[in-house]
Amino acid sequence: MITPKVLSGFKDRLPKDAMQKAHLLSKVSLVFQSFGFVPIETPHLEYAEVLLPDASSDIQKEIYRFKDHGGRDVALRFDQTVPLARFVSLHHKTLGMPFKRYAIGNVFRGERAQKGRYREFTQCDFDFIGSESLVCDAEIIQVIIASLRALDLEEFCVSINHRKILNGVCEHFGIKSMQEVTNVLRIVDKLEKIGIESVKQELHKECQLELEVIEGLLDILKIKQNNQTSQEFFASIAPLKAYNTNTKEGIEDLERLYQLLGDLKVSSNLYKIDFSIARGLGYYTGIVYETTLDNMKSLGSVCSGGRYDNLTKNFSKENLQGVGASIGIDRLLVALEEMQLLDERSTNAKVLLVCMEEKYFAYANALAELLRQSEVFTELYPEAVKLKKPFSYANHKGHEFVGIIGEEEFKSETLSLKNMDSGMQLNCLSVVKALEIIGKTDEDL
Amino acid sequence: MITPKVLSGFKDRLPKDAMQKAHLLSKVSLVFQSFGFVPIETPHLEYAEVLLPDASSDIQKEIYRFKDHGGRDVALRFDQTVPLARFVSLHHKTLGMPFKRYAIGNVFRGERAQKGRYREFTQCDFDFIGSESLVCDAEIIQVIIASLRALDLEEFCVSINHRKILNGVCEHFGIKSMQEVTNVLRIVDKLEKIGIESVKQELHKECQLELEVIEGLLDILKIKQNNQTSQEFFASIAPLKAYNTNTKEGIEDLERLYQLLGDLKVSSNLYKIDFSIARGLGYYTGIVYETTLDNMKSLGSVCSGGRYDNLTKNFSKENLQGVGASIGIDRLLVALEEMQLLDERSTNAKVLLVCMEEKYFAYANALAELLRQSEVFTELYPEAVKLKKPFSYANHKGHEFVGIIGEEEFKSETLSLKNMDSGMQLNCLSVVKALEIIGKTDEDL
Repeated sequence: MITPKVLSGFKDRLPKDAMQKAHLLSKVSLVFQSFGFVPIETPHLEYAEVLLPDASSDIQKEIYRFKDHGGRDVALRFDQTVPLARFVSLHHKTLGMPFKRYAIGNVFRGERAQKGRYREFTQCDFDFIGSESLVCDAEIIQVIIASLRALDLEEFCVSINHRKILNGVCEHFGIKSMQEVTNVLRIVDKLEKIGIESVKQELHKECQLELEVIEGLLDILKIKQNNQTSQEFFASIAPLKAYNTNTKEGIEDLERLYQLLGDLKVSSNLYKIDFSIARGLGYYTGIVYETTLDNMKSLGSVCSGGRYDNLTKNFSKENLQGVGASIGIDRLLVALEEMQLLDERSTNAKVLLVCMEEKYFAYANALAELLRQSEVFTELYPEAVKLKKPFSYANHKGHEFVGIIGEEEFKSETLSLKNMDSGMQLNCLSVVKALEIIGKTDEDL
Repeated sequence: MITPKVLSGFKDRLPKDAMQKAHLLSKVSLVFQSFGFVPIETPHLEYAEVLLPDASSDIQKEIYRFKDHGGRDVALRFDQTVPLARFVSLHHKTLGMPFKRYAIGNVFRGERAQKGRYREFTQCDFDFIGSESLVCDAEIIQVIIASLRALDLEEFCVSINHRKILNGVCEHFGIKSMQEVTNVLRIVDKLEKIGIESVKQELHKECQLELEVIEGLLDILKIKQNNQTSQEFFASIAPLKAYNTNTKEGIEDLERLYQLLGDLKVSSNLYKIDFSIARGLGYYTGIVYETTLDNMKSLGSVCSGGRYDNLTKNFSKENLQGVGASIGIDRLLVALEEMQLLDERSTNAKVLLVCMEEKYFAYANALAELLRQSEVFTELYPEAVKLKKPFSYANHKGHEFVGIIGEEEFKSETLSLKNMDSGMQLNCLSVVKALEIIGKTDEDL
């Protein structure tokens, strides 16, 4: 006998979970498609040399890497951005630019197991490759907003920043090397998590910054657009433009982005500038964003992304840049669950049909087909048994109705219908009447 | 510079392919759901000891198996049936029986690379666990038929057999040990592929069967229901019932299955009994089936399955049996492609909007939103450029319409619309008029 166990850090999705996830993904996929994003698929397994160069040292340690049957050095993908870079470099000519893709797939990281973190998890990315236009950056934000709204979320905020502003501000305070800047930003990124005092300490200890510099730096990186209009806000940060080319270009990009978002009539409380948004990842070079739900800030960002200038630098001399974001499926499911916005049923079938005796199966099956043709998803209980079992089955799975077929119903070509929520039962209904009660229209169909 | 190559035996799916596959899977998923099947997900990676015992010796060699970061002996799943057995054994109590699940996921086999065979491929399984009722067997056949019809396929046949008949016939000819029977069936399974003479030779050589036995055996295994009615056919095979309990029980099961299928009013040319259907896999114990497309028999079976009595035998003392089938996604895509039943577009967006100058973007974006609200998927070309580029982009991707916004359109709050199929262009249409032409209803929406 083998213990039927799952690897630590991995998980099964039972029907309810799998259905909730599928429902969420189908909603956001439709949003992606409605903006012209198209799906692609890349293998789960790649040459290690393809994946490794762009993995941070932390991730390098976590990669599932092994020798395959042919002795090749292979690895399971740890994200979908590196495979995208490989994909675009390989198929560039066939694809044509610009190229807007989305990809929903699982990635693998052998992280230390901890609550809520899995070693296999689903990423849901959408990216706009091959255009420098800020229209793309604005569209990614539009898609984030449309996606969350498609999930019935209304109270959230996309926090926006620009890597050039961050680089420029660091430069202004004498932090110039890429390595130093990355270190500083990695620590600043923890502001929300560990608080300002701890950030100051870390900046002092790890980056050897003077206290004065830290104060000056944080005074700027603490800047957020609060209740100011965008005009007021941009006026207040205008002096930073004088620091250097970086701050100037960054702020001007944000001004143009705000112009575009304003033109889109996106309600202005759904986005704001926040100079503390750094995004840990090294590859961003332009606008970056994170999205938090107003009532669940502690969940962290449910959708993050930004612009990167050098997507294909490892694979091709041709420089393709892009802008994109990734929806945090697992976090969103947690939030939607807490807000009771998820369907708690374990079946998509609305009706369970039950036969009291085996000889009614043919009739019941014809009935089931009729209901399906009217777009009512209908399950037939496969055995003729006492009603207790099928009722408890329907209660457990979440069928809204149980249709019962006994002698009377069989003879009169009708069915009895029990509403599993109200407990009310109507006997010997004609199919037409039953369909009326079941309701032909259903959001899920 | 790293060569952006894909591992041998693996492949990328470009947008057209990925969309065709997603479309197919979404159609069959709806069919599964309409019968009350629910999705589950299991990890791609499992303990090797969970996967290995049920892998045939051929598959054992092909499994991707390695040590993870914690030194665990792990492997990528090679099918979805063994993980299902592990899943059902683990979650039995929570799930409740009967349990009807479908699972669409990728599996990995390091087979020798050859045309049309991949080392990572998608399986689409649906299974009915925990009931002995033949109603389940009939329903699986119903779902196969409904799935193929949902893909606009009408000319196909489900070939049905019963493992008990095969075992009983072997027994009748003195082939009794499980090992011998399995060997004989493995060779008989190749009838279609290598022809009767080669099968005879192999049976003689590998199974040391007398020529007389081979002739007798094949005379029976060649039996198919051709143009006979089911009554005529069952009358013709009635004498086999006298062979032994196995043949008797097998034929009686098929008779009851036919009764059920007849009751369902499934057109009787969509299924037939064929005693040569063996299904190589060892775990089947009852009814088995394969499905071939009338005009593409050489493709092999596009949907196969059967009943298995001992699903959870490795994991649990509790014996759960099931019946299920697996749809061959890749073969079906090949067939649908050949029959020109696939959408050849590389986008789901119907309209591409193009701005002649940057200052029209706000208007174009508002227009795009309006179209999307009317369920017309609309993409906005992100740069203001000469029309040649966006036209060639739309031609390449397959947008049906290009909407053009220049000075006149901007001023009059209209758009010009070019039908990319006909080449016809209508200038300065009101949005209402444009929507009428584009057509609000679309099968894809």
